[in-house]
Amino acid sequence: MTASAQLTGVVPPLVTPLTPSYDIDTASLARLIEYQLTGGVDGVFVLGTSGEGTFLTDEQRQLVLETTVAEVAGQVPVLAGVIDTSTNRVAPHVSAALKAGVDGLVATAPFYAATHSTEIERHFTRLSELAGDTPLYAYDIPSRVGTKLPASLLTALGEQGVIAGVKDSSGQETSLRELVLSRREAGLDFAIMTGSEVTVDSALAFGVDGVVPGLGNVDPAGYVRLFHAAASGDAATARSEQDRLFRLFEIIDVADRSRMGASSAALGAFKAGLYLLGVIDCPLTAYPCIPLSEAEIDGVRPYLDRAGLH
Amino acid sequence: MTASAQLTGVVPPLVTPLTPSYDIDTASLARLIEYQLTGGVDGVFVLGTSGEGTFLTDEQRQLVLETTVAEVAGQVPVLAGVIDTSTNRVAPHVSAALKAGVDGLVATAPFYAATHSTEIERHFTRLSELAGDTPLYAYDIPSRVGTKLPASLLTALGEQGVIAGVKDSSGQETSLRELVLSRREAGLDFAIMTGSEVTVDSALAFGVDGVVPGLGNVDPAGYVRLFHAAASGDAATARSEQDRLFRLFEIIDVADRSRMGASSAALGAFKAGLYLLGVIDCPLTAYPCIPLSEAEIDGVRPYLDRAGLH
Amino acid sequence: MTASAQLTGVVPPLVTPLTPSYDIDTASLARLIEYQLTGGVDGVFVLGTSGEGTFLTDEQRQLVLETTVAEVAGQVPVLAGVIDTSTNRVAPHVSAALKAGVDGLVATAPFYAATHSTEIERHFTRLSELAGDTPLYAYDIPSRVGTKLPASLLTALGEQGVIAGVKDSSGQETSLRELVLSRREAGLDFAIMTGSEVTVDSALAFGVDGVVPGLGNVDPAGYVRLFHAAASGDAATARSEQDRLFRLFEIIDVADRSRMGASSAALGAFKAGLYLLGVIDCPLTAYPCIPLSEAEIDGVRPYLDRAGLH
Amino acid sequence: MTASAQLTGVVPPLVTPLTPSYDIDTASLARLIEYQLTGGVDGVFVLGTSGEGTFLTDEQRQLVLETTVAEVAGQVPVLAGVIDTSTNRVAPHVSAALKAGVDGLVATAPFYAATHSTEIERHFTRLSELAGDTPLYAYDIPSRVGTKLPASLLTALGEQGVIAGVKDSSGQETSLRELVLSRREAGLDFAIMTGSEVTVDSALAFGVDGVVPGLGNVDPAGYVRLFHAAASGDAATARSEQDRLFRLFEIIDVADRSRMGASSAALGAFKAGLYLLGVIDCPLTAYPCIPLSEAEIDGVRPYLDRAGLH
Repeated sequence: MTASAQLTGVVPPLVTPLTPSYDIDTASLARLIEYQLTGGVDGVFVLGTSGEGTFLTDEQRQLVLETTVAEVAGQVPVLAGVIDTSTNRVAPHVSAALKAGVDGLVATAPFYAATHSTEIERHFTRLSELAGDTPLYAYDIPSRVGTKLPASLLTALGEQGVIAGVKDSSGQETSLRELVLSRREAGLDFAIMTGSEVTVDSALAFGVDGVVPGLGNVDPAGYVRLFHAAASGDAATARSEQDRLFRLFEIIDVADRSRMGASSAALGAFKAGLYLLGVIDCPLTAYPCIPLSEAEIDGVRPYLDRAGLH
Repeated sequence: MTASAQLTGVVPPLVTPLTPSYDIDTASLARLIEYQLTGGVDGVFVLGTSGEGTFLTDEQRQLVLETTVAEVAGQVPVLAGVIDTSTNRVAPHVSAALKAGVDGLVATAPFYAATHSTEIERHFTRLSELAGDTPLYAYDIPSRVGTKLPASLLTALGEQGVIAGVKDSSGQETSLRELVLSRREAGLDFAIMTGSEVTVDSALAFGVDGVVPGLGNVDPAGYVRLFHAAASGDAATARSEQDRLFRLFEIIDVADRSRMGASSAALGAFKAGLYLLGVIDCPLTAYPCIPLSEAEIDGVRPYLDRAGLH
Repeated sequence: MTASAQLTGVVPPLVTPLTPSYDIDTASLARLIEYQLTGGVDGVFVLGTSGEGTFLTDEQRQLVLETTVAEVAGQVPVLAGVIDTSTNRVAPHVSAALKAGVDGLVATAPFYAATHSTEIERHFTRLSELAGDTPLYAYDIPSRVGTKLPASLLTALGEQGVIAGVKDSSGQETSLRELVLSRREAGLDFAIMTGSEVTVDSALAFGVDGVVPGLGNVDPAGYVRLFHAAASGDAATARSEQDRLFRLFEIIDVADRSRMGASSAALGAFKAGLYLLGVIDCPLTAYPCIPLSEAEIDGVRPYLDRAGLH
Repeated sequence: MTASAQLTGVVPPLVTPLTPSYDIDTASLARLIEYQLTGGVDGVFVLGTSGEGTFLTDEQRQLVLETTVAEVAGQVPVLAGVIDTSTNRVAPHVSAALKAGVDGLVATAPFYAATHSTEIERHFTRLSELAGDTPLYAYDIPSRVGTKLPASLLTALGEQGVIAGVKDSSGQETSLRELVLSRREAGLDFAIMTGSEVTVDSALAFGVDGVVPGLGNVDPAGYVRLFHAAASGDAATARSEQDRLFRLFEIIDVADRSRMGASSAALGAFKAGLYLLGVIDCPLTAYPCIPLSEAEIDGVRPYLDRAGLH
């Protein structure tokens, strides 16, 4: 079984539940995983952007990896983010994730320093060597990394067997369509996943394999229904689910953005939703992020109600 | 002696010399430090952006810190970059730098995730607690971090004693002047250093305390002459030195930017200059950066000649 | 009959054919219109971005308007761009277009000066008064104007009857979906058209009414087939047409971008295609744009061949 | 007498006073010109960005030109903005300004459509032919136009005699220094003026010839003192004036930016200052800009007081 064959469907990027003292809350993480598996997800992705991986110590990261692998227990693939500034600094994350027994690795281009396409190619090639048989996925998130991964580079990396797929969080539909078209024309089969919460029906319709939605933390079953509707050709149902999730995604605008950053507001809302649904015990985001206030947490509830989540 | 009192003049951000196999070249680093001290610099700053700190392993970083502290041997202050994505991930760099015995720490805002001003304040406050008596400097480099540190935040952090100064690499002269004016109006004395290579005479004239120029790797004595001219009120000599260095800085445009990133071209040029001057043994930049070609390295020489460097 | 009811389907933004001496080539314009009508388009839009309206004198603009209205002769609606920097400067374009007898007006937000949402609302409201019974469409093209029209503003303008619809060239799929959802939830019926060439099947699937594709100059019949397939629920045929047009759109990358701007390359390619197809006599773009070279014009031909255009 | 020789010192970009019904207030304009001449300015510039030229009808523009030329009566040069989207659309503004008898013309690169450096060169070359013996100045304002005029292009246009000088409102100090250095190295004498309000002492120190400050509407005498101090080598006085004007410039932040655009806030503050000083009768900005409230107008007064303006 190859990873590119297996990576399809709904693979939420799990948030990392924390205790009020900023430790990893493994009991809440276990419940979150159970909530996802019950929802029917096809995989889980930890230590990504939604997982606040860049905010955690090495020890905290290791605890997340081990807890997740143990709780998932092989029922679906576990992907791990290995996101750091450069090849040298990603390498120990790769070792740690392999040791924990994950099924796939997800890496961005180098960041902080601006790098060229050829330099990014060298980066992924080296990481692929370190990953060995474990599939490596390229994570395209220019809003965070400052660099857009060109479709031509991704296709070349796929042809070389360096990457087993792509998670596209670029928000650039044209580029994503180019990647899908190029893959087909080249006769390749690496996985293409969208990181969008709100354009999933479209992306599936033009050939994307699946979705890695942060909002899937809160409503995994909704994304699973959306995926299945799209896969079975029921575009009307897919669109209807997408429209419902589009409105649910507005929870990221509940928090007061004059008090906190965009990351804090979005991840705080996902955690608030899970807290209100009884899945996790504490909605805190990682230090130094400002947490949602009590009133803001309460403000998430009407969106859950409207979306039919209880 | 407070760090803010001592941080003034010319404090080049040292490049990190590498061997052809990407190890730290401690002999070249020692010669680079000797070259700087002979040039008359007032301090050195390692593991910053020019030092490719985000490209190095923890072990490599430690070797740079220990080598530098030993070679400088207390002749001037040693500042260390502790640049990483979040408070949690900066913390071990702080410990390592303190253990190595540096005289100051330089940290950016969190990056990868977008953070709010209040969150950045929490970040620096925590780092300051970790730093103890060792002064902490805020490094404002929005081109890399994605966030501009507001003058109001920096002034507040200065008033609270959280930071001992600022390295401004924002390229925003208005913001830098605001910071200088605010400092004066508030009666504060934290250090304000510009990271610009090419507007130093202006910055010193309106009240900045010193300069942290990447190009100072190649021509420390030139920046020292510029600083002394400005400090003694000889604006004409300061401008003349600045104009000469302005043209020398064009070495960053020698490399073919269709082959490599902006970081590689700039740092590769600094290293090429030091290599041609016999200071370091190998002009390689950190993996995965593309190195300058032989022809590109040779292309740096005429700029050195024109600037009177041999 | 209201304009919002009528504006649907394929409404290409016509290029403005020029003679070698930069005059309006009315004979070529007439043939272009005939080519469009034969292709089955549902309307034409002159003096937009593709029409180089901001490059033409008042006299040239008037000639384009009169020629188009005469040639179309009521077979389909004629929309006219009234794109200028401010309300005061758009006003005479409105008068001229009304005098020429167009069926709709298309205006952007003010540009050059940065304006606020409320100021944009005042702008459209005044223009709507000047337009009288002729429907006014808001043109959202932030890449040119520097301002994104918020969905909330557009919906409010629709509710007030100020605008009869929107042409969205923002490239922001999420914002476009928000507009479609808001329109439905508010029970409004203003027209929503996408200006994208390459995501039309998706946009139609989630509820957009039609398309204003610059590439429709070259292949109107292709977009008409795409629209009809989507309208009849044949998603596979729609996607297949879209994929073919996606590859045809690559003609905009034929010209050497180190010699000319992005506008020149794209519009030059559209005109080159029409020239090679025998529709227009001269592929020149407006002064001061650099024209495509002979070799570049020839370079467009293989794309036409591959797309089945002769 | 050449224009480049004459363009030096302080040349404020005059605001355009309006009546409450949005007509040109020629009496207020006459008083504004008198206020400027009394302040000792070296020229005036009408219909620029501060002059809201892109917001005015052709008739209003003509009235501003004629009023200004008549009031100035040859005491200092009158420069006129001829700012529009393309060569063809600038041309009639050139004719109108020449007919009114201005002493110089100020044009930007084309905007709305993105243009290449060579296309911009064609634009200025054609405008220069239309201008005849009247000097043409290039206006570099990328925040409005979307394109930065490269120093190499400006130097080339200077060498060709196409332009007599540059007004730099780019805010990019490095680029401005490059232009000054290139001019000196090429032995040229075209005028280089900064459009900055807050970095004038620096710019004059490194070789810029003068300043075109929007804030000069409110305090022309202050900029004249700053210029004379710098010209006579009294850097301390120049800096002291600059610091005072730096704080006065904060009037642009008085208005509530959640209610209006940045242009409205800045120009509204300049007009409010002139209104409070009794120079103009009405602080209204051009339609559709939101005007400052009474409270916001009052909020400007403390800044005038602190700056010693009555």
